[in-house]
Amino acid sequence: MNIILFDNDSESQTLPKSDLRAQHILKVLKCNLGDTFHAGVINGSFGQGTLTAINDKELVFHFTWTKEQQTVEDIQFIIGLPRPQTARKILNTLSTLGASAIHFVQTDKSDKNYTSSKLWSTDEWSRHLIDGAQQAFTTTIPKVHWDQSLYKTVKALPTDTTKIALDNYEGSSTLGHTEIKLPLIVAIGPEQGWSDKDRDILRRHGFHLAHLGTRVLRVETACVSTLSIIKSKLGLM
Amino acid sequence: MNIILFDNDSESQTLPKSDLRAQHILKVLKCNLGDTFHAGVINGSFGQGTLTAINDKELVFHFTWTKEQQTVEDIQFIIGLPRPQTARKILNTLSTLGASAIHFVQTDKSDKNYTSSKLWSTDEWSRHLIDGAQQAFTTTIPKVHWDQSLYKTVKALPTDTTKIALDNYEGSSTLGHTEIKLPLIVAIGPEQGWSDKDRDILRRHGFHLAHLGTRVLRVETACVSTLSIIKSKLGLM
Repeated sequence: MNIILFDNDSESQTLPKSDLRAQHILKVLKCNLGDTFHAGVINGSFGQGTLTAINDKELVFHFTWTKEQQTVEDIQFIIGLPRPQTARKILNTLSTLGASAIHFVQTDKSDKNYTSSKLWSTDEWSRHLIDGAQQAFTTTIPKVHWDQSLYKTVKALPTDTTKIALDNYEGSSTLGHTEIKLPLIVAIGPEQGWSDKDRDILRRHGFHLAHLGTRVLRVETACVSTLSIIKSKLGLM
Repeated sequence: MNIILFDNDSESQTLPKSDLRAQHILKVLKCNLGDTFHAGVINGSFGQGTLTAINDKELVFHFTWTKEQQTVEDIQFIIGLPRPQTARKILNTLSTLGASAIHFVQTDKSDKNYTSSKLWSTDEWSRHLIDGAQQAFTTTIPKVHWDQSLYKTVKALPTDTTKIALDNYEGSSTLGHTEIKLPLIVAIGPEQGWSDKDRDILRRHGFHLAHLGTRVLRVETACVSTLSIIKSKLGLM
């Protein structure tokens, strides 16, 4: 954690001692009373936290908020719903690297049962986003959706957006040689790949099919590669 | 596993039933007697395996080798020795994405005790490379070293090589805007970052310092981002 994120911008807040952030402040940052640390508000300001009291149950902090939220480039991901352990990694790394939104969608070959995981039925999904942002030293986390089909998701997209789908079978150019303009939406298939029906939906809604070369990547690796290549082409990495 | 890799190119080979590859062939590929699968020789040919017998203890295969080993671009990594759990992820993903060599080095801030992990004292390190290559559908795995200092490693490098070190503090251009020519060596700091002494060693040996933008990445994420950006600039991704 390079910054510790909190839910709101109150000047005085507490954390239960059992909270992972409290443990990090005590054990990793080794804060004593009066010590300060980098703090932020989820989707809000940056600032400084001061540890002002420790009691049996909780840590007490005072905050000063000094810098406004950064803007994040409008780069959205559509991803065929993967296994929960894969989705966890993607939530973390795309939050670290800075996607604006992630739409996990039902595709022809994705397993509908994955949405019943506790990752999605509890608030676990948001914790992975926050972890990723705390690593990145940012306060903005991606918006996440996981309850729509590929068809409904792409049908609702704005028309004035660059749309790229990654497909190592039918992609006609490398992602590196594909024109990148913001706002951008990039689609990555599920672990089982796109079906012909999925490809038809994507093409009919204006997606250009690109590829990431000859090597077969895990979905979570493809997500990191894709956002890194896009951000490098935009001069950001 | 998109291809199953074997140690040698004998036409007839066996695997103990307990071997992960044997389990994959039986349980994931669901091979019966006479069924074939994509096979390869580590740092060798591609071909086809046929399951010819199953007994109490082992699986018996016949192989035909049909395609020669692919060449891998000469892109070497120097990485400040990270915690074993981080090194495992790096071994896997840099093998998937196709680095030619990985030098894990002692830096000023890296923990010398990490080399006593069973990752390095057993052959576990090579298993992560093989897993990564099996994912990528390739047979070539990176060469790996983990017993030298940063100084000794960079001192032994050839002079006619492009040398880039990633440094989010002192990097003067993004990696995406840095000239990439093969052969290439790219250095990534340990989790604690480079020291001034490390930077001095790198600069004196001709390394250009570049960065990956404003977000702080985990070392394993930085490795994937770096090789992806480099390969996209070379037209390969």
